[in-house]
Amino acid sequence: MIIASRKNQTVVKSRGLLAEKKLREKEGLIAAEGVKLCTEALDAGLKAEYAIVSEEAEKKFSELTERLRGVCQVYVVTQDIYFYLSQQKSPQGIFLALKLLDKSKNLDRILEKDKIILLDCIQDSGNLGTIIRTAEAFGIEGAVLSSDCADPYSPKTLRASMGSGFRLPICVSSSLEDTVIKLKEKGFEVYAAMLDETARRLGEFVFPKRCALVIGNEGHGVSQETAERCDKVYIPIRGAESLNAAVAAAVICYEMGK
Amino acid sequence: MIIASRKNQTVVKSRGLLAEKKLREKEGLIAAEGVKLCTEALDAGLKAEYAIVSEEAEKKFSELTERLRGVCQVYVVTQDIYFYLSQQKSPQGIFLALKLLDKSKNLDRILEKDKIILLDCIQDSGNLGTIIRTAEAFGIEGAVLSSDCADPYSPKTLRASMGSGFRLPICVSSSLEDTVIKLKEKGFEVYAAMLDETARRLGEFVFPKRCALVIGNEGHGVSQETAERCDKVYIPIRGAESLNAAVAAAVICYEMGK
Repeated sequence: MIIASRKNQTVVKSRGLLAEKKLREKEGLIAAEGVKLCTEALDAGLKAEYAIVSEEAEKKFSELTERLRGVCQVYVVTQDIYFYLSQQKSPQGIFLALKLLDKSKNLDRILEKDKIILLDCIQDSGNLGTIIRTAEAFGIEGAVLSSDCADPYSPKTLRASMGSGFRLPICVSSSLEDTVIKLKEKGFEVYAAMLDETARRLGEFVFPKRCALVIGNEGHGVSQETAERCDKVYIPIRGAESLNAAVAAAVICYEMGK
Repeated sequence: MIIASRKNQTVVKSRGLLAEKKLREKEGLIAAEGVKLCTEALDAGLKAEYAIVSEEAEKKFSELTERLRGVCQVYVVTQDIYFYLSQQKSPQGIFLALKLLDKSKNLDRILEKDKIILLDCIQDSGNLGTIIRTAEAFGIEGAVLSSDCADPYSPKTLRASMGSGFRLPICVSSSLEDTVIKLKEKGFEVYAAMLDETARRLGEFVFPKRCALVIGNEGHGVSQETAERCDKVYIPIRGAESLNAAVAAAVICYEMGK
């Protein structure tokens, strides 16, 4: 049966999952759209709860549709209904609801790694997703987010992360300062990306095997409480006053991963 | 006199300049909004045609308003009218129309420099602006854009470039392949950012004093016609399949500027 009503409960719920963080948390679900992201989620081993495909997508992406049918209930909807529930301008017609990753368990796992990124109040979802994607690409093994960061599992963040958000261990910390203290106890050197008189110039030293990088808010940088507990690293630039947060993270992660 | 009508000719025109590339080209004007961007434009020596400030901004940013009055006609509008003409969610209430830079003259200037970036069909304005900002920060001295790139002087690109778009010499080339040939005649080594069997690994060689980098489209990379005429450079990554175009540009420009 093809769903053609906007009032259908699955349609209503799915539209809500894409739009509202609160509903995602209440239901314990995240929502992915598109062939690439849904494939990445399955490849990463996330648990599928249910999927929705448009009539057209069912034919066009028959292989992925079959794969989805192997792991969860798949609902077929009309093109109109898919457009109604989707957040995208030109949707491919594939929606997947996944079990929310249990972020609380990740901190212990992350503390056992060697290369970590800490994100202090990164507010733009696009920046956050790009940083997660780039960090994974340069060999960073885990990300700790302050609780005032954008939602790492919002559709926009997931899209910018291009699947890295499903693979990189991520946890949300109620106190980034405390996380820095824990990391230092575990033998990490922790560098905040910022300029002060003690800051080391990127490229003029080698990062130790065990190290963490703190990237601060797009406007205000790293918060004082966290910065006080860290060494500092700066990127030498000229002309422009500053770099975009995702660009700064990229260049330092590139050096860390060397 | 405070303008309070949406039908006022200056209001209609300014709203159009923010929204439509065609109108910007017809009028030979570009449009900047906000304290930071308007200040950067004046500092960079662009010629102001006229400005619009909201009643509130006239008081709040009195110094900038005075500076604007020294160089061009300044119209004051009500808050409502400013919101109507603005493209921003929380506008500061400062609008500036500037003479469009004559991009055609810039190619000769750029060919005399040592470090250049070529952008092949970068379609996202945010990416384009971020690349321009980052390139300037890492000492790149000019940018050549293929004609199918996003508009370098759209409000979104200018915002992402954070003023670098007013300072970095930019030109639009009707044939990026021809530009590569010209650059090579001038003694440039030209590197396309892409992976093939001949590509050199970033970080394992030193860029020559005179060099150019080609960054390709977000989805399809560097076009074949252009790539054929270039050496290749790749960024070593793992896990993630690829990097965002602005991130790739940043990391290579960082190495070029070393």
